[in-house]
Amino acid sequence: MTVSKSTNIPFSRESLESLLKRRFFYAPSFEIYGGVAGLFDFGPPGCAFQNNIIDVWRKHFVLEEEMLEVEATMLTPYEVFKTSGHVDRFSDWMCKDLKTGEIFRADHLVEEVLESRLKGDKLARGETIIEDDDDKDKKKRKKNVKEIKNVKLDDEIVAEYENVLAQIDGYSGPQLGKLIEKFEIGNPATGGKLEPPIEFNLMFDTAIGPSGNLKAYLRPETAQGQFLNFNKLLEFNNEKMPFASASIGKSFRNEIAPRAGLLRVREFLMAEIEHFVDPEDKSHPKFNDVKDLKLRFLPKGVQESGSNELIEKSIGEAVSSGMVDNETLGYFIARIYLFLTKIGTDPNRLRFRQHMSNEMAHYASDCWDAELETSYGWIECVGCADRSAYDLSVHTARTGEKLVVRQALPEPKIVEEFEIDIAKKKFGPKFRKDAGKVEKWLTSRTQCELEDLSKELAEKCKINVDIPEVGATEVDSELIKIEKRTRTEHIREYTPNVIEPSFGIGRIFYSIIEHQFWARNDDADRGVLSLPPLVAPTKVLLVPLSNSQELQPIVKKVSQILRKEKIPFKVDDSSASIGKRYARNDELGTPFGITIDFDSIKDESVTLRERDSTKQVRGSIKDIVEAIKDITYNDVKWSEGTSNLQPFE
Amino acid sequence: MTVSKSTNIPFSRESLESLLKRRFFYAPSFEIYGGVAGLFDFGPPGCAFQNNIIDVWRKHFVLEEEMLEVEATMLTPYEVFKTSGHVDRFSDWMCKDLKTGEIFRADHLVEEVLESRLKGDKLARGETIIEDDDDKDKKKRKKNVKEIKNVKLDDEIVAEYENVLAQIDGYSGPQLGKLIEKFEIGNPATGGKLEPPIEFNLMFDTAIGPSGNLKAYLRPETAQGQFLNFNKLLEFNNEKMPFASASIGKSFRNEIAPRAGLLRVREFLMAEIEHFVDPEDKSHPKFNDVKDLKLRFLPKGVQESGSNELIEKSIGEAVSSGMVDNETLGYFIARIYLFLTKIGTDPNRLRFRQHMSNEMAHYASDCWDAELETSYGWIECVGCADRSAYDLSVHTARTGEKLVVRQALPEPKIVEEFEIDIAKKKFGPKFRKDAGKVEKWLTSRTQCELEDLSKELAEKCKINVDIPEVGATEVDSELIKIEKRTRTEHIREYTPNVIEPSFGIGRIFYSIIEHQFWARNDDADRGVLSLPPLVAPTKVLLVPLSNSQELQPIVKKVSQILRKEKIPFKVDDSSASIGKRYARNDELGTPFGITIDFDSIKDESVTLRERDSTKQVRGSIKDIVEAIKDITYNDVKWSEGTSNLQPFE
Repeated sequence: MTVSKSTNIPFSRESLESLLKRRFFYAPSFEIYGGVAGLFDFGPPGCAFQNNIIDVWRKHFVLEEEMLEVEATMLTPYEVFKTSGHVDRFSDWMCKDLKTGEIFRADHLVEEVLESRLKGDKLARGETIIEDDDDKDKKKRKKNVKEIKNVKLDDEIVAEYENVLAQIDGYSGPQLGKLIEKFEIGNPATGGKLEPPIEFNLMFDTAIGPSGNLKAYLRPETAQGQFLNFNKLLEFNNEKMPFASASIGKSFRNEIAPRAGLLRVREFLMAEIEHFVDPEDKSHPKFNDVKDLKLRFLPKGVQESGSNELIEKSIGEAVSSGMVDNETLGYFIARIYLFLTKIGTDPNRLRFRQHMSNEMAHYASDCWDAELETSYGWIECVGCADRSAYDLSVHTARTGEKLVVRQALPEPKIVEEFEIDIAKKKFGPKFRKDAGKVEKWLTSRTQCELEDLSKELAEKCKINVDIPEVGATEVDSELIKIEKRTRTEHIREYTPNVIEPSFGIGRIFYSIIEHQFWARNDDADRGVLSLPPLVAPTKVLLVPLSNSQELQPIVKKVSQILRKEKIPFKVDDSSASIGKRYARNDELGTPFGITIDFDSIKDESVTLRERDSTKQVRGSIKDIVEAIKDITYNDVKWSEGTSNLQPFE
Repeated sequence: MTVSKSTNIPFSRESLESLLKRRFFYAPSFEIYGGVAGLFDFGPPGCAFQNNIIDVWRKHFVLEEEMLEVEATMLTPYEVFKTSGHVDRFSDWMCKDLKTGEIFRADHLVEEVLESRLKGDKLARGETIIEDDDDKDKKKRKKNVKEIKNVKLDDEIVAEYENVLAQIDGYSGPQLGKLIEKFEIGNPATGGKLEPPIEFNLMFDTAIGPSGNLKAYLRPETAQGQFLNFNKLLEFNNEKMPFASASIGKSFRNEIAPRAGLLRVREFLMAEIEHFVDPEDKSHPKFNDVKDLKLRFLPKGVQESGSNELIEKSIGEAVSSGMVDNETLGYFIARIYLFLTKIGTDPNRLRFRQHMSNEMAHYASDCWDAELETSYGWIECVGCADRSAYDLSVHTARTGEKLVVRQALPEPKIVEEFEIDIAKKKFGPKFRKDAGKVEKWLTSRTQCELEDLSKELAEKCKINVDIPEVGATEVDSELIKIEKRTRTEHIREYTPNVIEPSFGIGRIFYSIIEHQFWARNDDADRGVLSLPPLVAPTKVLLVPLSNSQELQPIVKKVSQILRKEKIPFKVDDSSASIGKRYARNDELGTPFGITIDFDSIKDESVTLRERDSTKQVRGSIKDIVEAIKDITYNDVKWSEGTSNLQPFE
């Protein structure tokens, strides 16, 4: 349970959710049709907040680092994800109750049943259970879950359950199946027996074109579209390395059981960077600019020892001590921190957690997550993975199109290597239809294999080989020659490594809202969203003191100026009291209010109100708008930006 | 055939396409896997150009009109599109060659075959054929099309073909089938017989969730997501009417035969506005601001008379004469014009064409398209449709959730209406299992029907009715009472009409590029894209005169200033000549070049070059950057913006 800022009222997810719904930040999609789990629509304030996050992201990363933005399609043919490994490995495990047709995600099922048994045990032992919001959410979600039974468990069983729960993210499907059998876990509602876990691929599929023969998926990440364009991007960058591409767009995952609002959904906005780097040089020219930034880390060693204690150190130390592998990875971790805190993340609820080896995605060789603490626990919001040369290599192998960098060597390099010569003319008569296969097999041997073969050939004047699809055969020295030769290389050819910072915008969106939500004056119903002005959906609420026609010209004038300055604002000329109108505004996270009163008619002065402190100042329209611009877009503090204005009570 | 601007060189689509590919504006998706028709990826300049178009769109429409932006999901359950009519009617007609498996879009097939026969006829008559780019494109696309045969046709046949071609967009599937039979149209490559046309739904389908039972589509338009949220949006708008919502996002159409590059694709970006308006009052408060704007129209009457002659008049006259139905429609047409010309559309190649009644989408009651002229002909880039109350009504009827506006009447209204009272208790014993059906049927009668029934009841003390699923039955006056009564209404309830300006961003993107492409100095290979600075992908190219280290500090200084001002720029410090670097730049549409030379070291002065005129001026870094900002973002002309700078040769 977390406590909201500057207030004594404990955080209530219920109050926050009610606010988000009432103010249409977001809502379940297709609600009038009964809704679809895991799909959400964003209303005007949600849309504007999200657009502002994206806008800052683009400036902070793409513009600042001169990244190459690309936009690839979401529809992706089968072959691409077959090659990338997603067809075979991008899946979760599910169990089906054949009787009722219900489907459960295997790991969640084991987790929930064991947790509920442990609670029943505690009740039976006379201990009290503090139910947190997360529990309430779980219960609401799984309406069918049986009431917790007061059943005391043996001490060894309790220990075993706790041990399983600690490792729940690491089990394979068959392992989950064994746990389900061992602990006699059935359908929580009926107790009915479940089928063993089967794999369920998380990609949505469809078919392209009228014949229906071209199978396709909706992408689960934007990355592949960037990898496939690598050669075009490298050329666009005048063949210079390193460089980064970036994509902002929707991705899709057909979650078995979507939950926790925006945190696990089926259609979501991602912003991904693919930074291509020489595997032999992962230094970063701007690392120096960030090296003194202090961050909080949870490295894998600490987790493996069973602890969650954070280590605070500068990113410079983190890299020089080897905890973070290299400067480029470190640079991005620091830049991620600066981005997240700029848009409203509470730095005290942000940590960088390293993946343990058994939890890494199939393509990753190392990964640090920026995690934000919420009422649902610590949530992975940004992944910063080293995908090594995995993707570029597999696509090269599959298509024959080399996704590599060719670099002139500073000085020519002498290379000594075994080479094989083939007397092609003699191959046909000897091997007939297999000639091509034998030739291909021979030319694709490694250096070690060629060395062995050359010895065999020298000894026996022939080699005996067993070739797939051909079988055992022999090749004599009439047909081939294997020799060690030296040659001079002028070009170095290599497959770049990829450092990938990958942002889940919806998760960041929700976490920031939790971090910035509090209740004013110890009144649980007076919610405030203290979003930074830079990303707040609307910057200004314009409030005429009364409905009087006399005030309209000033309202119009201020509106025109704000519109001209492209400052998003709203007018609230409803008949509600000023207090009520500002309260509405607090809920929308609008940082500034401009009040127009009868004095405004005399001298065109207006009052400016600051949302968090409710402080007010008075000045000319021009000075007030200038202050709003400076504080919102130019990183100026309230006290500085309003120093030329009069305090107002 | 069109001629490009300020040059004598005729427009060449081939040169333009080569430029767009070379500079990675966009390219076929998955090219290293052989590509997928109708899918394109945007590279860095394409992405930036598109983002800038969207940015201007948001400011021009959403911010200016205080529209409510929403973001709905692309995944949409079957039921929604069943209700909206897309499942039944959003389709094209296709013909299959059962022998070869080839599939043809029926209208395109008829069009191409008849056109090719008409050409063969012309050749046989000794006339010359001018082949335009469009023909070349078609030939390339349909590699299988037979060579044009010199066969003379009867004069009546020629007339009949021409008549069919003029109406080609209006035929139904069965009509196309008859034409195919009548004119003996077969597979153009083999002459083989084709199956009669069948309907092919253009929506991509998939399934949501692990059971696969929830059928879903990828949306073909963003509109439905806005309609379904109508009640939330109205509430967000404090119940005030009229108002507009807006969405920017991807939509999908599974085209049978994608063609013409970005003009007919399977995944595309749309920006759509749904303006909700009282059907009894379609005036617009800001119409006066635009009423004198002169536009070029092609109304349906002119088209139906077989002419394409444009009518030029002010939008004010167009509305007052009744040609454009109402002020709101007229206001948006004017705003669309202002938007398109602001971002680089040539006003001389822009027209507003009204849909003829047989070509309108199933939901539209009137529609004007903004069409842009390109080498592919006039292309529909923005649709401005009056969808009437169609969508809100069908969703209301399907879900029972009323999507309506309730408005307090200025004064109460006396309503006289027939009402029916039902003695429910007696219904059960009399009708048993049919009781509900009979009751529902009775309560859903119209006023006219009730009037007739009341007469019958008065005459015979019973009514004889035939109810679906129940059959013929009688209801006597013991069971029902029908009376004319008066009541007082305080609330007016109505379903709003919807005016929908809908923008195909990819089509606008491509058309502007054609409008702004030309060749410098009569040299076909020196292409220039004269994109307006506001939307140009990069605003400034920074060019140090040489590779000398001495120039680096100034390059760094200018870079820092541009970055701080958030002006997108690129440095080109390659060893290519200045001319070559600027030529590269012209192709990217970069409006400004800053040259740094050895004089810059002395006094920090730099040269600013304008892309279209190649004029140059000299001044301090600060003044040059100020000029760039003013011209790019503040709508200042080059001559004004640089008036304080020195001309430079």
